Amino acid sequence: MTDLLTKLLSDIRDGNVDVEEGLQCLRDLPFMDLGHTKFDLHRSLRTGFPEVVYGEGKTPEQIGEIFDKMGKHTNILATRVSPEKAEYVQSVCAEAKYNTLGRTLSLVKKPISYNKGEVAIITAGTSDISVAEEALETCEMFGSHAKIISDVGVAGIHRLLDRLSAIRQARILIVIAGMEGALASVIGGLVSQPIIAVPTSVGYGASFSGLSALLGMLTSCASGVTVVNIDNGFGAACAACKINNIL
Amino acid sequence: MTDLLTKLLSDIRDGNVDVEEGLQCLRDLPFMDLGHTKFDLHRSLRTGFPEVVYGEGKTPEQIGEIFDKMGKHTNILATRVSPEKAEYVQSVCAEAKYNTLGRTLSLVKKPISYNKGEVAIITAGTSDISVAEEALETCEMFGSHAKIISDVGVAGIHRLLDRLSAIRQARILIVIAGMEGALASVIGGLVSQPIIAVPTSVGYGASFSGLSALLGMLTSCASGVTVVNIDNGFGAACAACKINNIL
Amino acid sequence: MTDLLTKLLSDIRDGNVDVEEGLQCLRDLPFMDLGHTKFDLHRSLRTGFPEVVYGEGKTPEQIGEIFDKMGKHTNILATRVSPEKAEYVQSVCAEAKYNTLGRTLSLVKKPISYNKGEVAIITAGTSDISVAEEALETCEMFGSHAKIISDVGVAGIHRLLDRLSAIRQARILIVIAGMEGALASVIGGLVSQPIIAVPTSVGYGASFSGLSALLGMLTSCASGVTVVNIDNGFGAACAACKINNIL
Amino acid sequence: MTDLLTKLLSDIRDGNVDVEEGLQCLRDLPFMDLGHTKFDLHRSLRTGFPEVVYGEGKTPEQIGEIFDKMGKHTNILATRVSPEKAEYVQSVCAEAKYNTLGRTLSLVKKPISYNKGEVAIITAGTSDISVAEEALETCEMFGSHAKIISDVGVAGIHRLLDRLSAIRQARILIVIAGMEGALASVIGGLVSQPIIAVPTSVGYGASFSGLSALLGMLTSCASGVTVVNIDNGFGAACAACKINNIL
Amino acid sequence: MTDLLTKLLSDIRDGNVDVEEGLQCLRDLPFMDLGHTKFDLHRSLRTGFPEVVYGEGKTPEQIGEIFDKMGKHTNILATRVSPEKAEYVQSVCAEAKYNTLGRTLSLVKKPISYNKGEVAIITAGTSDISVAEEALETCEMFGSHAKIISDVGVAGIHRLLDRLSAIRQARILIVIAGMEGALASVIGGLVSQPIIAVPTSVGYGASFSGLSALLGMLTSCASGVTVVNIDNGFGAACAACKINNIL
Amino acid sequence: MTDLLTKLLSDIRDGNVDVEEGLQCLRDLPFMDLGHTKFDLHRSLRTGFPEVVYGEGKTPEQIGEIFDKMGKHTNILATRVSPEKAEYVQSVCAEAKYNTLGRTLSLVKKPISYNKGEVAIITAGTSDISVAEEALETCEMFGSHAKIISDVGVAGIHRLLDRLSAIRQARILIVIAGMEGALASVIGGLVSQPIIAVPTSVGYGASFSGLSALLGMLTSCASGVTVVNIDNGFGAACAACKINNIL
Amino acid sequence: MTDLLTKLLSDIRDGNVDVEEGLQCLRDLPFMDLGHTKFDLHRSLRTGFPEVVYGEGKTPEQIGEIFDKMGKHTNILATRVSPEKAEYVQSVCAEAKYNTLGRTLSLVKKPISYNKGEVAIITAGTSDISVAEEALETCEMFGSHAKIISDVGVAGIHRLLDRLSAIRQARILIVIAGMEGALASVIGGLVSQPIIAVPTSVGYGASFSGLSALLGMLTSCASGVTVVNIDNGFGAACAACKINNIL
Amino acid sequence: MTDLLTKLLSDIRDGNVDVEEGLQCLRDLPFMDLGHTKFDLHRSLRTGFPEVVYGEGKTPEQIGEIFDKMGKHTNILATRVSPEKAEYVQSVCAEAKYNTLGRTLSLVKKPISYNKGEVAIITAGTSDISVAEEALETCEMFGSHAKIISDVGVAGIHRLLDRLSAIRQARILIVIAGMEGALASVIGGLVSQPIIAVPTSVGYGASFSGLSALLGMLTSCASGVTVVNIDNGFGAACAACKINNIL
Repeated sequence: MTDLLTKLLSDIRDGNVDVEEGLQCLRDLPFMDLGHTKFDLHRSLRTGFPEVVYGEGKTPEQIGEIFDKMGKHTNILATRVSPEKAEYVQSVCAEAKYNTLGRTLSLVKKPISYNKGEVAIITAGTSDISVAEEALETCEMFGSHAKIISDVGVAGIHRLLDRLSAIRQARILIVIAGMEGALASVIGGLVSQPIIAVPTSVGYGASFSGLSALLGMLTSCASGVTVVNIDNGFGAACAACKINNIL
Repeated sequence: MTDLLTKLLSDIRDGNVDVEEGLQCLRDLPFMDLGHTKFDLHRSLRTGFPEVVYGEGKTPEQIGEIFDKMGKHTNILATRVSPEKAEYVQSVCAEAKYNTLGRTLSLVKKPISYNKGEVAIITAGTSDISVAEEALETCEMFGSHAKIISDVGVAGIHRLLDRLSAIRQARILIVIAGMEGALASVIGGLVSQPIIAVPTSVGYGASFSGLSALLGMLTSCASGVTVVNIDNGFGAACAACKINNIL
Repeated sequence: MTDLLTKLLSDIRDGNVDVEEGLQCLRDLPFMDLGHTKFDLHRSLRTGFPEVVYGEGKTPEQIGEIFDKMGKHTNILATRVSPEKAEYVQSVCAEAKYNTLGRTLSLVKKPISYNKGEVAIITAGTSDISVAEEALETCEMFGSHAKIISDVGVAGIHRLLDRLSAIRQARILIVIAGMEGALASVIGGLVSQPIIAVPTSVGYGASFSGLSALLGMLTSCASGVTVVNIDNGFGAACAACKINNIL
Repeated sequence: MTDLLTKLLSDIRDGNVDVEEGLQCLRDLPFMDLGHTKFDLHRSLRTGFPEVVYGEGKTPEQIGEIFDKMGKHTNILATRVSPEKAEYVQSVCAEAKYNTLGRTLSLVKKPISYNKGEVAIITAGTSDISVAEEALETCEMFGSHAKIISDVGVAGIHRLLDRLSAIRQARILIVIAGMEGALASVIGGLVSQPIIAVPTSVGYGASFSGLSALLGMLTSCASGVTVVNIDNGFGAACAACKINNIL
Repeated sequence: MTDLLTKLLSDIRDGNVDVEEGLQCLRDLPFMDLGHTKFDLHRSLRTGFPEVVYGEGKTPEQIGEIFDKMGKHTNILATRVSPEKAEYVQSVCAEAKYNTLGRTLSLVKKPISYNKGEVAIITAGTSDISVAEEALETCEMFGSHAKIISDVGVAGIHRLLDRLSAIRQARILIVIAGMEGALASVIGGLVSQPIIAVPTSVGYGASFSGLSALLGMLTSCASGVTVVNIDNGFGAACAACKINNIL
Repeated sequence: MTDLLTKLLSDIRDGNVDVEEGLQCLRDLPFMDLGHTKFDLHRSLRTGFPEVVYGEGKTPEQIGEIFDKMGKHTNILATRVSPEKAEYVQSVCAEAKYNTLGRTLSLVKKPISYNKGEVAIITAGTSDISVAEEALETCEMFGSHAKIISDVGVAGIHRLLDRLSAIRQARILIVIAGMEGALASVIGGLVSQPIIAVPTSVGYGASFSGLSALLGMLTSCASGVTVVNIDNGFGAACAACKINNIL
Repeated sequence: MTDLLTKLLSDIRDGNVDVEEGLQCLRDLPFMDLGHTKFDLHRSLRTGFPEVVYGEGKTPEQIGEIFDKMGKHTNILATRVSPEKAEYVQSVCAEAKYNTLGRTLSLVKKPISYNKGEVAIITAGTSDISVAEEALETCEMFGSHAKIISDVGVAGIHRLLDRLSAIRQARILIVIAGMEGALASVIGGLVSQPIIAVPTSVGYGASFSGLSALLGMLTSCASGVTVVNIDNGFGAACAACKINNIL
Repeated sequence: MTDLLTKLLSDIRDGNVDVEEGLQCLRDLPFMDLGHTKFDLHRSLRTGFPEVVYGEGKTPEQIGEIFDKMGKHTNILATRVSPEKAEYVQSVCAEAKYNTLGRTLSLVKKPISYNKGEVAIITAGTSDISVAEEALETCEMFGSHAKIISDVGVAGIHRLLDRLSAIRQARILIVIAGMEGALASVIGGLVSQPIIAVPTSVGYGASFSGLSALLGMLTSCASGVTVVNIDNGFGAACAACKINNIL
């Protein structure tokens, strides 16, 4: 964008574009081009961050077209993509990689530049793995290396304590748990890193599709735990990468 | 009751009471007297268990009258008694003892016979102590020795691990926690005793007056945790004593 | 574990391991191995208790592999297994037995040692039978004999009263009911054993998938009733067996 | 109305009113005047039924004025009247009688004609008595004799069974219970009369101010139980009296 | 029962049974045998009322067996029977009649004796017809003639007013409405008969599967409206028939 | 109606109909015919407004019959029509046009007269387009021209600001958003037109099928935003057209 | 804005501002300074609309200061002002007028210019009058004449029908009702004006502080009813005045 | 801890402690003493972080004692302290400073070392200021400088845009809003810093004590927004400071 603006202003200075034209040009450019590069319209172009596509409710064809057209210039991450949709997209964009567990499609056309800090993605049970994989793919596409530490639920506290040093090596933690969501509280009492908690819809009955874990995480007795929407591995990874980006 | 029935039947056998009269007598006896001592109408008389009075919504005078009249024959436990009510009751029944934190009034006229096993009442935070004291008083009145292990919330897991041997010595555990209620899950993974979890209304916002802890305990990832109503220290103690009574 | 520690300390005493090495050794041992046999990592191996597999969300292949591999050494109980999954598992592990109503798979490789007390599993209606069967299988696998007393809902109180003596013979009661869940209250007023109540999702409309029964059981006017999650026959049986184990 | 219409049409026929005027006339007549005296505007004047005043949110002066003015011609029942308001009203209308427990004020100026059938108002606990008294006063003012049978909650089923014959003598039953509201189901299974269930806000925690009892009664396993709003003793009595009126 | 007791007491008097034996005998008699034949065990056999089968969650074979076996002696009504199940049942019990809209199966082997009063079943919209038909079939099987007055929702108040005289002819009203459930309030203000309101799950979004209509009916500004569970046409009809039965 | 009444009254005046007959006639006419043309029974006939059919829960045949029969005289709009149903209806009424995204069927037999003002239908995301299309079709059928301005969600506020002048040209705004529904608040602060907000069920987890957006819109910090039911594009358009009609 | 941009571009063309500077300039301009006076910062000054103060949670002194300072230049409306606060404000700003029922304070310094159309504010019961008065004051301050038509709840439909012509004379309707909120549906079926429905928190038990009325109004069977927050008379009036303003 | 272990192992090697004793010793050592100084028992002593006291539910005397005793060695922050309690605490600990709006008491005995980055605390309305002040005090006590940017709610988007550069200068953002909580979404779309959203209980009716804002923030359309409990300014500040601490 800065380049575009620089060129336009230079053209005006040089008389290649007259004021009236320049005015029109500024108007016709997408609004954000009026100087609001700060609005990060084309974040992916400037930052190497991918375009993100929410696959739910989109047809295979729609997702395929996005990968086909935009995937020439930029990295793309699509979340909540069913295997059937993924298969179609890969038929039109062979480079797109599908994470079956995380249900993500990712396409890397421009090298991703990684931050130093690592994100640890910690899950309470094996059933939370789908959300963890979505978070993992998102972190990697957004420039943060990530690792999954799974199945350390609080009902077997020793398994968690056993992995503490691996957890402590990470810069930021994403804690994923269903049912009562207690894992966030326990880890919050053991480490000092920022913790982003993700309630999952794993469970039945009084787990009310994740409500129980959500409330549990929001009322965590460990100070400073923050929470994202139920099953929102993508959002947690976004938050983690934003934190990892600050300097 | 058995005595009453034995006497009645003997009277019939001996002709002191004729069949018609006996029939009427069996009918007129309070229903429970027909042989349903198993219905435990006068449990406290037979078992040494106290009469229990739920103080909420009763006037000081009403509670006072119960202590005054029934307290000559039996032990009495009153729960949810405000200090003002307690003061009045003690003015008419000087022997009644008031537990300020637990808001219970207890009167012991007949010696309580205690079971062997001890009940450990474990609380997550200092704010849960009121519920714990209610449970303690109830246990003691129902024939189970109990001890409180407080402030071992999961956000400082070490404090909990530090008290594990004391916890393991007990026969039955009552775990009391507000907020996310995670303590029940963590203890459930560490010990093998029966655990009765009590959610408390401690907290604000998304704790929704104990709903969050309640849901968390119901969906605990630790198998075999059972739950009672929010703030129901009395009910948890009842359940613990019933367990302690079985042989 | 005790053996391991004994050997290590003996080696240090005997000079086979020096202090520095010993220190490292204690550190390097898996955390749990530092003396935390009390954490019951391999409970099933030591106690004869089965490994438990939650079948929901696992593929037939995953369950099959668990039965195939672990089933050589230990007993296994799998819950919430659909008929299709069960069929596959039985194709790789012929000894696994499927309870169609309870949707459980069980494999007994080591003889189960049973406690004396019996668990009575009482249901309000015929529709609660699936939860009851899950509880029954769990009890049997966890070392408690159990029996089902079905269809004694409170709308026909006589049927319940008719079964009272059978109910009173049991040591611990599991009461399973949907709709308003009143059965737990009524039984709680009739007997003195510990009662674990299981709300079920049977019903429609204002039963809100078991919420109505759950709330009803939590607010039961019968003191000392404890509650587990909706449809959680497994959890109720766990709690019952923990109670049956104490002494 | 028919008269009015007859006259209008006759006037048109006779030329006293022309078509245009008649058209206007039909349009201009207040809608209700077109024949809707059947809409029971002044029910109390015609039927001996009282005017009913909902005291909540009205000032003592407002209630006093109603009693003062309307109380010359008709019977009045005011519900949800606090003692302070009642005192004021009685100062301006000495004949008004206050039911302290039921918080009702009633004024009988015209003799009430009673139906034959009796309404039995059955409560689970002593705390439900306020709602029961409101129902009782309402029944009496609406022309149905009523009696209260209290403290027969399901946790002591024998007390209920003991009162069965008294219950069976009534024509219609109002069953009042808080907590889990199971009493309606149990009675519904024992008798064949119409049952109107009133959930009460008695309880705490998971009783959620009566929600638990409300849901329990709505999902009652006893067929044919109908339900009114929480604590709505007045509404239940209205329904009972409507039933008692039919013939 | 009285006979049983008389004989027992006589035997004691006569020395045929000694006191100890008599005591045991009173204890051992099944509770119900103490005189509770009044508990209406086999209501349908004695009253001509049908056995009722709740079809949801039962297999076609189970329902078929009930019709096949019991249908020789008594009338049967099955509710919530899908067309597939109905087809099977009719294949084993050709006399069973299926109401496609109401999803009921009914079998009449013994003549039904009808009460005088008619039940009017009033629906707000055409989508509520399924619940109305269930209520209709139930009324007819329980001995009350019934008629459906449909599509008189409050958004077209004139359609309702148009049917008022038909509504007023009935003895008891069942009012069925989804969405906001306002129909019960409006009718409650227009007529004096008992009204049983049935909220339906018709609607979307904020109707929350009938919750909106349920709450609306419970808080109806028309006094004396009673409510049953969402979509519970059967329950409303039961209540109506109980009312119609009283005399 | 006026014609009918005029004729009737004239007939009475002229002696063609006598008073008794006239009286009967007024009685027999559908109630609304008594002068309540204002009740808008046949609004579509008089106003050119379409008959509206709610397609959910109706069979293809039912919808087809309505289009076939009524579609000869009046315009028809059917909402919530699945593609399968639409296909059938079009087979019997070829002129009916189907909007695939909005799931509406519309038939225009009489020319629609349009109001001057335009309705702008603004959506937060592409997933809200289905609701927007339903609103669009409804506006057009009810006599208001409408345009959709899509994908201007608040997370990219610039896109919204860019479209402000287009938004300001409209007379009435319909704002459609899922998730947190913030778009209504932001637009409400930017423009002065009436705003009707439509929460959508787009989202997952804590969006609770549109509840989150619904609550957000109801508590909007922008004064004067009004709200309709979740996904109710039709209702919003009705409200907009009612506003557009006044003058 | 165009002027500002034109000048900037001309300066660049003319060399008065170089490209780098121009670039910075476009970046540094405060966004709002780019021409967004259209964002209606000082609406009240320009339009004669009052400043609005939400009195809840503000101290008497804070409200007093606003009236004192701003009240010299503009009209002010304060809502949710308790009598105590009002008394203080009037002590510092004698011209402020207090509506005791509506709990509003209003100060008119500049003449209000009124629109032609009238707003009818219709209430179901006398308890809704407070919300109605708030709406009335707001309408008058925002330039719409308004009238209250009270106590026309649906349980006495005739009272409503009686007032229909008065209702039809208004241009826009605000319908205020608690409990089941049915009034909006009934009026929606009778008239063609825009209707803004306000649920009120009047009621108890299952009215859940207005939730019942809110849901009822959102799911109204009358098309085109829009809804504002519970008790939000102010918001409804804002919406009505926005509608009344369009031309 | 390492010292302790070293000494124990040396003692064993040297024969001062035999193997059996050593084994017992390892078992008996409080778990935490086994090397878990990393568990941050006395975080405040080591890090300069304050002890935190949750003032709700504590007596003035309890808080006073904490300040009196611990305040000699460490910094203390107390939250949710009423003015009355604060007054008492200041009477025993004159150095404690009270923030009236934020209801916090803080005592600084050891100099706080500050991180470079600044936290911007942004509020939607003036009513959210109490939560903002709590967050501010917490940030300052935890070593992060903070500033409040208030009253930039989305209904006046220009005010927000006006403050964008001030917002962009901060390293981490805390966004505080009640009602619909839309501010987090809008800011999330404008800036790239980590955002912690705090819903507040400001509002009435459908804001349901903050639930509306909570759900809105959890479902924010801006990716990467994380959320804490309602009114939890303290928790948000904790999270922000944890982020600010990483490097």
